Amino acid sequence: MSFNSFGHLFRVTTWGESHGPAIGAVIDGCPPGLPLSEADIQPFLDRRRPGQSRFTTQRREPDAVRILSGTYGGLTTGTPISLVIDNVDARPQDYGKVARAFRPGHADWTYQAKYGIRDPRGGGRASARETAARVAAGAVARRVLGDGVRIRGYLVELGGDPIDRDRFDWDQIDRNSLFCPDPDAAGRWERRLDQARRAGSSLGAVVEVVADGVPAGWGSPLYMKLDAQLAAAMMGINAVKGVEIGAGFGAARLSGEENADPMRPGAAAEGPRFLSNHAGGVAGGISTGQPVVVRLALKPTSSIRIPIETIDAAGQATTIATHGRHDPCVGIRAVPVAEAMMALVLADAKLMHRAQTGREAGFADLTQAARRST
Amino acid sequence: MSFNSFGHLFRVTTWGESHGPAIGAVIDGCPPGLPLSEADIQPFLDRRRPGQSRFTTQRREPDAVRILSGTYGGLTTGTPISLVIDNVDARPQDYGKVARAFRPGHADWTYQAKYGIRDPRGGGRASARETAARVAAGAVARRVLGDGVRIRGYLVELGGDPIDRDRFDWDQIDRNSLFCPDPDAAGRWERRLDQARRAGSSLGAVVEVVADGVPAGWGSPLYMKLDAQLAAAMMGINAVKGVEIGAGFGAARLSGEENADPMRPGAAAEGPRFLSNHAGGVAGGISTGQPVVVRLALKPTSSIRIPIETIDAAGQATTIATHGRHDPCVGIRAVPVAEAMMALVLADAKLMHRAQTGREAGFADLTQAARRST
Amino acid sequence: MSFNSFGHLFRVTTWGESHGPAIGAVIDGCPPGLPLSEADIQPFLDRRRPGQSRFTTQRREPDAVRILSGTYGGLTTGTPISLVIDNVDARPQDYGKVARAFRPGHADWTYQAKYGIRDPRGGGRASARETAARVAAGAVARRVLGDGVRIRGYLVELGGDPIDRDRFDWDQIDRNSLFCPDPDAAGRWERRLDQARRAGSSLGAVVEVVADGVPAGWGSPLYMKLDAQLAAAMMGINAVKGVEIGAGFGAARLSGEENADPMRPGAAAEGPRFLSNHAGGVAGGISTGQPVVVRLALKPTSSIRIPIETIDAAGQATTIATHGRHDPCVGIRAVPVAEAMMALVLADAKLMHRAQTGREAGFADLTQAARRST
Amino acid sequence: MSFNSFGHLFRVTTWGESHGPAIGAVIDGCPPGLPLSEADIQPFLDRRRPGQSRFTTQRREPDAVRILSGTYGGLTTGTPISLVIDNVDARPQDYGKVARAFRPGHADWTYQAKYGIRDPRGGGRASARETAARVAAGAVARRVLGDGVRIRGYLVELGGDPIDRDRFDWDQIDRNSLFCPDPDAAGRWERRLDQARRAGSSLGAVVEVVADGVPAGWGSPLYMKLDAQLAAAMMGINAVKGVEIGAGFGAARLSGEENADPMRPGAAAEGPRFLSNHAGGVAGGISTGQPVVVRLALKPTSSIRIPIETIDAAGQATTIATHGRHDPCVGIRAVPVAEAMMALVLADAKLMHRAQTGREAGFADLTQAARRST
Repeated sequence: MSFNSFGHLFRVTTWGESHGPAIGAVIDGCPPGLPLSEADIQPFLDRRRPGQSRFTTQRREPDAVRILSGTYGGLTTGTPISLVIDNVDARPQDYGKVARAFRPGHADWTYQAKYGIRDPRGGGRASARETAARVAAGAVARRVLGDGVRIRGYLVELGGDPIDRDRFDWDQIDRNSLFCPDPDAAGRWERRLDQARRAGSSLGAVVEVVADGVPAGWGSPLYMKLDAQLAAAMMGINAVKGVEIGAGFGAARLSGEENADPMRPGAAAEGPRFLSNHAGGVAGGISTGQPVVVRLALKPTSSIRIPIETIDAAGQATTIATHGRHDPCVGIRAVPVAEAMMALVLADAKLMHRAQTGREAGFADLTQAARRST
Repeated sequence: MSFNSFGHLFRVTTWGESHGPAIGAVIDGCPPGLPLSEADIQPFLDRRRPGQSRFTTQRREPDAVRILSGTYGGLTTGTPISLVIDNVDARPQDYGKVARAFRPGHADWTYQAKYGIRDPRGGGRASARETAARVAAGAVARRVLGDGVRIRGYLVELGGDPIDRDRFDWDQIDRNSLFCPDPDAAGRWERRLDQARRAGSSLGAVVEVVADGVPAGWGSPLYMKLDAQLAAAMMGINAVKGVEIGAGFGAARLSGEENADPMRPGAAAEGPRFLSNHAGGVAGGISTGQPVVVRLALKPTSSIRIPIETIDAAGQATTIATHGRHDPCVGIRAVPVAEAMMALVLADAKLMHRAQTGREAGFADLTQAARRST
Repeated sequence: MSFNSFGHLFRVTTWGESHGPAIGAVIDGCPPGLPLSEADIQPFLDRRRPGQSRFTTQRREPDAVRILSGTYGGLTTGTPISLVIDNVDARPQDYGKVARAFRPGHADWTYQAKYGIRDPRGGGRASARETAARVAAGAVARRVLGDGVRIRGYLVELGGDPIDRDRFDWDQIDRNSLFCPDPDAAGRWERRLDQARRAGSSLGAVVEVVADGVPAGWGSPLYMKLDAQLAAAMMGINAVKGVEIGAGFGAARLSGEENADPMRPGAAAEGPRFLSNHAGGVAGGISTGQPVVVRLALKPTSSIRIPIETIDAAGQATTIATHGRHDPCVGIRAVPVAEAMMALVLADAKLMHRAQTGREAGFADLTQAARRST
Repeated sequence: MSFNSFGHLFRVTTWGESHGPAIGAVIDGCPPGLPLSEADIQPFLDRRRPGQSRFTTQRREPDAVRILSGTYGGLTTGTPISLVIDNVDARPQDYGKVARAFRPGHADWTYQAKYGIRDPRGGGRASARETAARVAAGAVARRVLGDGVRIRGYLVELGGDPIDRDRFDWDQIDRNSLFCPDPDAAGRWERRLDQARRAGSSLGAVVEVVADGVPAGWGSPLYMKLDAQLAAAMMGINAVKGVEIGAGFGAARLSGEENADPMRPGAAAEGPRFLSNHAGGVAGGISTGQPVVVRLALKPTSSIRIPIETIDAAGQATTIATHGRHDPCVGIRAVPVAEAMMALVLADAKLMHRAQTGREAGFADLTQAARRST
């Protein structure tokens, strides 16, 4: 992990500011021979695209991705894949006020403190616009993972109002503009969001991402644990303030016997059967073969119309109200972003695993080892 | 971040198994000229040392650290610092049962699945014993940070029972064996732990770590954000299942105006004054100048005497009860470990910051910039 | 160092194929506040640009660079700098023959062997066209180094014919199209090149690069030695088969007393005075304060019109003669590329040095230390 | 590549000073399940061991290696392998003079300039003693490579006197104490060395290392080229001032058609047959399937008894003559070190290759691809 690169073997470097000419990602280390064209990436960008409902920013960006290198004849060649997305609806003039004062909770002050200079146009590099590059890269990572691994995200809480797990319906997620698996909650959340939007306020949310089909054995002790990589990946998304795996903070309230995930013999090709998944699919930093489950808490965006006390560039007291185009709940569009980060972590883990062990997954060897030892 | 190395410029590589001859850490990139001897490290190891109360494992390890390289005349020379801690009270014979079956929730199964081989003696590399190497390295990181940065950890919840924040007393933390800042809670927790220990069960906990004195400007967008690094650091500690910064998951339940941390003009040398710290000292991945606040949730240890269903090495159904020497609540000894990880992240961030900017902190420049711009 | 990234703190990632739509570089870790515009980069690209004399490929590329991110108001902001150079004069149709057979000595066979697929258009990623991205990045690295460090390259041998060191004249280098500091040699070389070009052959060359003004103390033992970094940087340029520092292979023929670089007291602000520079400015992997001197040997390009025995994609015997547009001596245009690689290594070393020591250079401290110790 | 770590996936971190208590290496990323014990490493250390003839330093070190972690039941487990070698014959008192003045050509001055402090005992970290840790790690790397890859080094020149290639005899290399494949040259060299030793002088040498059995496809464009990695690896060995691959600097004197390595159809399982190997087994940064051939030039050691002008720690003029125990030609013992570095680079390249492509070597796919395309 480096300043603007993510991953070790499947490595993504992103660049670009919110209101510059374009943003992009360079993917290094992609395996050769994978089918890849813009059409494989665009659908994921479309899911993240702003301006699709009244609950997201009204900035109109087609987010059309172009592949500038790394493929030949529709296949990846193993060389770097350069992805570029032009910024079409940039309005740098909206940000005169931001240039003059620091939005509390935003990166305005910290960038200025660190660098002594900042690009104030739409938050510059700190804008959530950068996450489009992540989503594009995540689509390529899914190619590396193949169809055996399925990654799906959704909201489980908005403005403190959680879904009812008993009403959970995978098919609902794409039927509302809030990635909500519980239709009742979706209705309540829409009303909450309308209210917040009208008040010039914003709301937080909790996103859950599940990866099915991850074989046992991915991830590496001790400082490249799969859960630690996921924690970094998710905490690095704008506005995220908390991450948990499996039972998460709830695990701290269970006894050892409640939290255990008992194991039973499984089908030979599938590894053991687990009777529960408090671990969220990771033990000792390595995947167990169960679904990998991560949740992330997103704060309400700090770009609100309600005035907040702050200081200006000269250090003097003032107040600021942010009137640009903003999401009333950044947690919504974080769903495809969090899915992408999951894909990036898993693709990297897959390559790291086969580097060290020469195998794609761990289980086959185990059963052989088991047979040898009996 | 690599398999067994942590950090980028202040980089620690640890090695060793729970019941091998020794464990150790090699610290690379330490600045030269810092006073360092074993006496600077030992007190931190003593805080983590097992067997100091009935609430931690009864394994008796002096955890005496030796510095084998990297210092001359009591000062660091800029070359690698090799730290070694001998394993004195190893009892590999305790682990015959573990070798034959997988403890649910432990790394037994996943190591076997990944590598096709594992060292079953006390969990081998997956043992919490490795954290002694982290604590030793963390003591050196504190030298790099200097006296201006103070890092303190404590428990805020045990077995689902939280402290009362109104009773918070820094001085209490070292007066009980549970790192508890609330004397009432400490009493309740001792009773809970005695109960769990007698029942052969275990309990979870939540640890909080606070770093005071971190200047504004440390940490780097976008994939080396300070909070993302902290999330990885903490999630990588054994048994941790959740991490949050500042208001954390609670932030997802606040409105934008509630969660904002308003800024007021501060003393010239100190940067702005913040009216609250929901951000936990990090915005946009960069330190704000406020205290950095992290919480981590630890599950109850999976090594319990209560039998749990599992499979053996041949894949057959069995049960396992773990009778070795174990902590009834691994969250307790996680306090000095979490402090060490905080120190490692901050020392690395300090060096990264001065690499890119040529400065130790960001604020001085800002005020100059501010003056220039007015 | 990673697949397509170079450097550690000042880190460049390049992308693009010879006959794709564009090539580019993303620079990560650049210090903030440096003046930077396209005009600072273009002159270096112009020096490397093809088609400027009959001694280089006749491909016509304006090599106009665009900065897509990382600057604001004409200053670097500390965020990634994305540089893009469009491919204008691509002629993929020239490469049908190359697609069907492997050019001996070229990367055709090895890319195919490694990836099972290759982009045959102009060598794809293996083309020297990629070096334009290095030159652009090198121009930014020079900004990081500042005016105190001067980097100059030139040819010292072409087709086995060396310059006469007694005729060395810095001013001549830019007066001929061969970067030759000896006007007599320049004349001889032109005749040799015309001959080789007409014969459909090619010639090798030796390039020397000198960096003046590098302070003592840059570079790091033991696996990031300045000379090892330079060796990797130079050996990684297309067609380079040998690298030497200072006296290089010649040092192996000297006695210890002949090779020693005796030291004399120097002016206080300048460090010691050395009576010779066999070391080439590096001892123990760290700069001595003398000029850093590197030489690199470039083979004659393997793209020649004289037919060579080879195999085709089906493994059958054939011959190949390469009729595209090629340099008769790739060593000529390697001069600005080698300068750029020197700049990249030094800029990275500068940032690494100040990260670990908090200082820009080492000498001031030494004299203080010396005074203390006397 | 980092300060004291080498390699990416097969990663070695070394530590220790010449006259400290011990030196060591931590190997991270080793594949699991490989047979490994001290007996696999010791023979390589014994080849490098000092004091075995009058031509190497008289320091008596048994160089007995201990494995402190990373194996179980005689097999590697995939966790870090900690190797420790005690310093037995340390004589720090020999170095009073070195502490007071800088040996020209040695790292004394540059360490002091960089760090403001240095360990003067035997050169501290800059001593060739560190290479024992490399040799130990190299022995483990050979395990990763397996028996199919054979790495052999030898001297081809000493004091400017080259071997006669027509007399080259592999069996001679281990029959003399100079790793010389030409018995006539061995005799001449012994006389030269005796002379130099008596005169208190030293001699340089050129080492060649050949790796047979490297499959086509290892190494990665563009900044992890196999030859660039080798160049860094070899240039990073103490006293090395030049590195070349295949025809090396000689290639710069050939025409394109002379330097070409024509290809002919080979046996199906073996890839093409090359009619020459000017490339030294690497094209485009990727192995061709031919032997990988590297040469390195070592300067005469700067630790000589003949007095050289220098300055003392206070910056005053003085002379220094080094009377400790030193090798009259450090090139001799560099042979096992250079072999080890070759092994480290290749082991890393093997793991990197299978990470990206999922294959151990490239050729099989090529023939399949070729068949498909015909």
